[in-house]
Amino acid sequence: MAGQGGCPVILVNGQPSQSLPVADRGLQYGDGLFETLRVEAGEPLHWSRHLSRLQTGCERLGIPPPDAAVLHHEALTVLQGQPRGVLKIMVTRGSGPRGYRPPAAPAPTRILAWNAPAAAPSLTVSEGVDVRLCRMRLSRNPALAGIKHLNRLEQVMARSEWSDAFQEGLMLDTSGQVVEGTMSNLFLVRDDALVTPDLSHCGVAGITRARVMERARAWGVSCQEDSVRVEDLWRADGLFLTNTLIGLWPVRSLEGHPVSVPPLVARLQQAL
Amino acid sequence: MAGQGGCPVILVNGQPSQSLPVADRGLQYGDGLFETLRVEAGEPLHWSRHLSRLQTGCERLGIPPPDAAVLHHEALTVLQGQPRGVLKIMVTRGSGPRGYRPPAAPAPTRILAWNAPAAAPSLTVSEGVDVRLCRMRLSRNPALAGIKHLNRLEQVMARSEWSDAFQEGLMLDTSGQVVEGTMSNLFLVRDDALVTPDLSHCGVAGITRARVMERARAWGVSCQEDSVRVEDLWRADGLFLTNTLIGLWPVRSLEGHPVSVPPLVARLQQAL
Repeated sequence: MAGQGGCPVILVNGQPSQSLPVADRGLQYGDGLFETLRVEAGEPLHWSRHLSRLQTGCERLGIPPPDAAVLHHEALTVLQGQPRGVLKIMVTRGSGPRGYRPPAAPAPTRILAWNAPAAAPSLTVSEGVDVRLCRMRLSRNPALAGIKHLNRLEQVMARSEWSDAFQEGLMLDTSGQVVEGTMSNLFLVRDDALVTPDLSHCGVAGITRARVMERARAWGVSCQEDSVRVEDLWRADGLFLTNTLIGLWPVRSLEGHPVSVPPLVARLQQAL
Repeated sequence: MAGQGGCPVILVNGQPSQSLPVADRGLQYGDGLFETLRVEAGEPLHWSRHLSRLQTGCERLGIPPPDAAVLHHEALTVLQGQPRGVLKIMVTRGSGPRGYRPPAAPAPTRILAWNAPAAAPSLTVSEGVDVRLCRMRLSRNPALAGIKHLNRLEQVMARSEWSDAFQEGLMLDTSGQVVEGTMSNLFLVRDDALVTPDLSHCGVAGITRARVMERARAWGVSCQEDSVRVEDLWRADGLFLTNTLIGLWPVRSLEGHPVSVPPLVARLQQAL
């Protein structure tokens, strides 16, 4: 198993491989789930939270979840002692005959891939990011909301709308609610309290989002999940984004208009 | 290139292969499109219509479309002179670095696979199929409606709701409109005219659906695309389903209640 030449180290069902059968339902239908974990000091961070979300997703889709011990062993194998980087885990319903109907006894596919660490955030990013509003909308479907499934065309289309002028784009759903960034969750600061969009119709329930909510509440800071509209963004005292790899990004501008960064945001950024 | 042992014959970018790189965005995000064609007398039927829908999908997703001549050559290669069967074509945005952002210069992946013919329809099926209503809803997003993209979890989840008691399930969208079957389009017969659900918010614009609409109009039979609700199904004089592989399926029962099959349905079935 080699990780040279820029190729990520990949294990497919425990075996070193760079490829997957064409018949895999992950490719055919996006019939699966994924997790992206940050690796520090040779350990995938917040392992049990990611595992729990993966298991929840498997239950929702009716995919037999991977054995937790096997998955952790494979994670450490694929890291090969690398101290830092990104671990991506995918679980699909595996191969099957043609057609949407899931096999009665699916043999799910586990894919674990180690990637080099994302580029270190620039000073600009730690001070605040420039954010835009995407034209592409998220569709609403409670049956698929919250989990990190492989049907990600909406995020791909949203992310194709701009090049490098912004670090992230916020997405509204088809009913006009603000939901999240293409790869991050959103928080609003309002009167020393936090609001984050309700994800019961769409969006991914992020691990860092959950950690921020817990931390805020532990500090006695109110944190509500609520519907958010674009006008709420303009009225907020501050905005920030969360993501497993980046942690917390204060928003310093939205659509080119300056956004202030309240002290609570810096305090949360430190705490994470 | 061998097709023995039940393995479909597959070409990936013109080369015989049973596998695809894990980094392919078709797997990572469902970032691609597909077509399923019926092969008769060694020819993929309605080639130009399928190619046109594939090209429309590529334009919508910003994926460079495959060269039509190359694709046709590969289709005939993968068929290997087999007179009958099913040809599946997939086009993905190809491999790329981690993240939703599409590569600036994507190298799309073409996958062509020949499969054995679907089992011959039973007499029951030609006389009419038993249909149910699915609990799983289709999400609404005009940006992805009509095209045959690879984000198909909703169809997978809908098809997992039943085993063999029904041939097809109808899907409503999240606003309660009836849209289509899991793998077919729907028509209602009403006062000697046809109605088929409007697909501007979700659904796949089927090739056979288009052929039925053209044929009906050529006969002077009105055929409207309109919003359809469940109560419209119960009030209809008849219902039928269309799909490239099955042609036209009269519906003989819905949720266990008999549905009559008007003469127009048999006439259209003959004409196709």
